[in-house]
Amino acid sequence: MTRYKAIISYDGHDFAGFQRQPHARSVQEEIEKTLTKINRGKPVIVHGAGRTDSGVHALGQVIHFNLPQKRDEEKLRFALDTQTPEDIDFISVEEVNEDFHSRYCKHSKTYEFIVDIGRPKNPMMRHYATHYPYPLDLSLIEEAIEKLEGTHDFTGFTASGTSVENKVRTITKAYLDFDEKRNFLIFTFSGNGFLYKQIRNMVGTLLKIGNKRMPVEQIDRILTEKNRHLAGPTAAPNGLYLKEIRYEE
Amino acid sequence: MTRYKAIISYDGHDFAGFQRQPHARSVQEEIEKTLTKINRGKPVIVHGAGRTDSGVHALGQVIHFNLPQKRDEEKLRFALDTQTPEDIDFISVEEVNEDFHSRYCKHSKTYEFIVDIGRPKNPMMRHYATHYPYPLDLSLIEEAIEKLEGTHDFTGFTASGTSVENKVRTITKAYLDFDEKRNFLIFTFSGNGFLYKQIRNMVGTLLKIGNKRMPVEQIDRILTEKNRHLAGPTAAPNGLYLKEIRYEE
Repeated sequence: MTRYKAIISYDGHDFAGFQRQPHARSVQEEIEKTLTKINRGKPVIVHGAGRTDSGVHALGQVIHFNLPQKRDEEKLRFALDTQTPEDIDFISVEEVNEDFHSRYCKHSKTYEFIVDIGRPKNPMMRHYATHYPYPLDLSLIEEAIEKLEGTHDFTGFTASGTSVENKVRTITKAYLDFDEKRNFLIFTFSGNGFLYKQIRNMVGTLLKIGNKRMPVEQIDRILTEKNRHLAGPTAAPNGLYLKEIRYEE
Repeated sequence: MTRYKAIISYDGHDFAGFQRQPHARSVQEEIEKTLTKINRGKPVIVHGAGRTDSGVHALGQVIHFNLPQKRDEEKLRFALDTQTPEDIDFISVEEVNEDFHSRYCKHSKTYEFIVDIGRPKNPMMRHYATHYPYPLDLSLIEEAIEKLEGTHDFTGFTASGTSVENKVRTITKAYLDFDEKRNFLIFTFSGNGFLYKQIRNMVGTLLKIGNKRMPVEQIDRILTEKNRHLAGPTAAPNGLYLKEIRYEE
């Protein structure tokens, strides 16, 4: 048995999310179908580092799977890249130790969230950025986003009813870029793990702060009071990208 | 009767092109349907400056149309922007003189052609850039693209069988940019008019030159000998954008 780690990218628009589920198209299922074909009909299970939601994209999702025989890495990458549907791409495939696990090995993730602030929007980006055509004071967003860095209990930024007990996470980097040429805001968040809908809730809150319908200090209140109702709305999934995953040595 | 000029953008992926045609979805038809509704059922005809092909996008296409009554420009823009399908956007609407004609008034057009040279491609851009994963010497492309500037007979770069008699056109600007961050080549062409498939044939030829399967001097031969068979293949429509149209005062 040989274990392989792969870095993949996908367009989340036509998927119900990464994770396999009945009656819906998922990234996991599409890759498993292709791997099973490559494995002469014997089922192959795929594990992903992150379970991206419906409509969320990936530029650097990491998966792993086992195959009974050793394969040439580049030939395997090419076969997977060309035999999976065109909205999934295989960036790299490499053999790893059998104890590598994409989900359970310690890692940090980086997410990007793209907001199209053009009026009107760029129609080519309607599935790949969230449109926000309202006035924004970027300096307020910059002030607020800094407050999210560090180790906090992010209960107030997660969807209610999640089963995860410990909601303390560390955000190592959180910053805003403005791509003037394309009229896009790009939010970047890196950390050791994110809660369900955490990033979309943080972005929704930051936009509301930038739009002056919430004070910058609201961030402190949400973190301290751990109350989801204090936060802004959940931003749409189409602007969210799982950008990169780094494993500890 | 009041004449309006509008600047629009659209995602060409789901259109058979700009121009109305039977049994196929066109940008012109979608806008005419919406305008006719706004005009209480009385048909409105739309004229466009450029007839973009199936799959070709627009960031700054210009159209004009007549309405029997004067309208508030911003209200009309908003109505058109929100009532047309989501792959068409209205950037601006303004009242113009009755002698303005989007197609026949003298103007220059700028087209952009995006080539994704990443290996593998960016799946989010598969309908919005042409993927070219082969080795390229960009300095050769830069040398060759310069030769296209100026006034030439572009017969060798147009599709055979076009009805236009005079194939002399002037390209005022032709240059290559490299977006390192996104791994995109961006070709820009400005001129007083382009022949059918001219830009896609020029880009296909430039890529072949960059890939060293054609010498830089081939450009001179194509222009002098006016022979389509000397040029490279037609690049796919998904990378082409009608970017801007400027009218003479």
